[in-house]
Amino acid sequence: MASKDVDTELPLAPWARRIAPSAMQDMLQNVTRPGVFSLALGLPAAELFPTQGIAEAASRVLAEQAGALQYSSTLHALREHVVALMAKRGVRCTSQQVFLTTGAQQGMNLLVRLLLEPGQAVMLEDRVYSGFQQVLDPYQARRLAVPTDSRTGIDLDAVESVLASGERPAFLYTMSDGHNPLGASLAAEARARLVKLARDYRMPIIEDDAYGLLTYEESPLPPMRALDDRWVYYVGSFSKILAPALRVGWVVVPEAMVFRLATVKESSDIDTATFTQRVVLAYLDSGKLDAHLGRLRQEYRLRRDTLLGALETHMPKGARWTKPSSGMFVWVELPEGTDTTVLLAKALELEKVAYLPGQAFSVVGGRSAAHCMRLNFSNCEPARIEEAVARLGRVLAARG
Amino acid sequence: MASKDVDTELPLAPWARRIAPSAMQDMLQNVTRPGVFSLALGLPAAELFPTQGIAEAASRVLAEQAGALQYSSTLHALREHVVALMAKRGVRCTSQQVFLTTGAQQGMNLLVRLLLEPGQAVMLEDRVYSGFQQVLDPYQARRLAVPTDSRTGIDLDAVESVLASGERPAFLYTMSDGHNPLGASLAAEARARLVKLARDYRMPIIEDDAYGLLTYEESPLPPMRALDDRWVYYVGSFSKILAPALRVGWVVVPEAMVFRLATVKESSDIDTATFTQRVVLAYLDSGKLDAHLGRLRQEYRLRRDTLLGALETHMPKGARWTKPSSGMFVWVELPEGTDTTVLLAKALELEKVAYLPGQAFSVVGGRSAAHCMRLNFSNCEPARIEEAVARLGRVLAARG
Repeated sequence: MASKDVDTELPLAPWARRIAPSAMQDMLQNVTRPGVFSLALGLPAAELFPTQGIAEAASRVLAEQAGALQYSSTLHALREHVVALMAKRGVRCTSQQVFLTTGAQQGMNLLVRLLLEPGQAVMLEDRVYSGFQQVLDPYQARRLAVPTDSRTGIDLDAVESVLASGERPAFLYTMSDGHNPLGASLAAEARARLVKLARDYRMPIIEDDAYGLLTYEESPLPPMRALDDRWVYYVGSFSKILAPALRVGWVVVPEAMVFRLATVKESSDIDTATFTQRVVLAYLDSGKLDAHLGRLRQEYRLRRDTLLGALETHMPKGARWTKPSSGMFVWVELPEGTDTTVLLAKALELEKVAYLPGQAFSVVGGRSAAHCMRLNFSNCEPARIEEAVARLGRVLAARG
Repeated sequence: MASKDVDTELPLAPWARRIAPSAMQDMLQNVTRPGVFSLALGLPAAELFPTQGIAEAASRVLAEQAGALQYSSTLHALREHVVALMAKRGVRCTSQQVFLTTGAQQGMNLLVRLLLEPGQAVMLEDRVYSGFQQVLDPYQARRLAVPTDSRTGIDLDAVESVLASGERPAFLYTMSDGHNPLGASLAAEARARLVKLARDYRMPIIEDDAYGLLTYEESPLPPMRALDDRWVYYVGSFSKILAPALRVGWVVVPEAMVFRLATVKESSDIDTATFTQRVVLAYLDSGKLDAHLGRLRQEYRLRRDTLLGALETHMPKGARWTKPSSGMFVWVELPEGTDTTVLLAKALELEKVAYLPGQAFSVVGGRSAAHCMRLNFSNCEPARIEEAVARLGRVLAARG
């Protein structure tokens, strides 16, 4: 029908013309069909949201704050809470270095807009959060993909060798903890070495720490921002520790970046105190976050352990997987030759079980993760995790 | 101290380096100081927000919807409400043509990202919403500024002559009703002629209708989107008819644009149903919007008339101003030679009264609005409007 003709004639910028109705969207619809045992999506557990506390906070905000629904300047008190949260994460910063965003995704988007010149190169791992690649698309950024190990993380020799070859990427994007999709966390020495490379080569690091507060260790390492307040631009979020639909996140950056972020945010969606920022502030004021975070970590740790135990039982010989110390994901490497994209259709059809194929996280064009899959453990109750992995095991066994 | 050095050494893209700590921000702080009679900002009246209805909607959402705080697909039911609202505005569209945004500002931002190639030209009026110019800044778009008349709006002969000269702008940005800053609305013939030009020259129009539902006429004209569903991209918002801090807006576009908008929104701040979208939906489901809109129009009409009456009494000879049939603004043209930017400092100091200087709305570099000012009438109770204009009159009289 006519929609194709209309499509061809849309007055789009060239890069926008290339946007395709996403195969990912189709896949997401498939993996979230009712009845599917899904380890696919990176969702927090809705049944663990502090809904009652948030409802009380929302009521309080609307009952007590005359300007709660009006345009206003951003909330200094919420930035102060972020400073306290960052201190718990092992980072010293000031509220003048904190900028509030519409979730971590906006934090990344605004930083990229400020740092990246169209056509310039950026450095990232060859297995990377797909939403970050989407941020890059409009810029036609040249992607310098460096290898990443599913257990030890980004290959620092490769980073150094790219930089030593004379490349000057606009930034390096990485995650120190709870890596999406790998579940890896960097060792202390790796963090220090990467920060030193950033300083030596004057290359900013965008440190995506969306999962850092979901740690299952007693003494987690601080993120790289704790080692450097000038070259590390930190991205944080309430989406995974409170609730995503509130759309509240933050970045921690050099103070001189903040008015620039304010300008680009103003043009993006207006840099104002939102109703949900006020709700988050009222919730934090109630002092309930610590106990909530404790419960979250306990439950997610249980789910992680359930997943790891089930993998021991049900994965075929030759498979290996990560043992995350934070975050929501386990990365499974199946024997070479397995194609997890092809396998997914079978898994859905035969066993109604879902995961995300490694391919979904490859830097554009790469095939190196074709035998891998990302499994989420946060969004499934333990009994369902058991069942899902048993089903996955049957799919893999049938394949052989 | 060191912040200047740090600033110089920030690893910014060139356009981001040019972002200055905004003089506008300073001015906004000045004009919102306590005790100032301010007609400056484009704020709706917080005391008219349906706060109780919104509080009830928020409670209901959190009590009844298990997934209210989770990532999810966007709300079809809210898009259906938008279709109904558009019908009241005189526009026929389908829910497949509606895309939900984080306020109208995001609608403009996403459309510009899809339509504009860096370096390409865009057409706009020489008096234009400053937030739209901010959207253009990262693209270094060449601005084709056409004259605009404070009463009749955009100069269509000028538009035609630019297009006939061979220019092919990526789009034209304009407002049919309640123009910000002018308060003008286009005549029916002007709407038809502009749409015809868009068709003839295959130039999309971004029609910003943030104020269109705040009409003070019995039979308002429909926006240009009612005349063309292919070349007119409509931007709407709940910010002015419900409340800005909810950050919910929409666009109405050809269906083939929607998955592209979804892709760029995904990369901007995640294209998910937000808590506040659910709150707006629950509020609309309660059926209270019509009565609320009626009250808003009645009160804003009163404030408009109060402002227009006070101007008659207090403005100096030679001043003229618009009589808006919708929106929140009156545009005052003072005798040539008046510099309203210089005058503002005096107005604040001597009479504690504030407005926005016309200069703030000029296309970069222009000086043609230096003798003009924008007055807002929505955010001030009638008695304060009277007093503010009396004070403004004294400032202008003292100048002579």
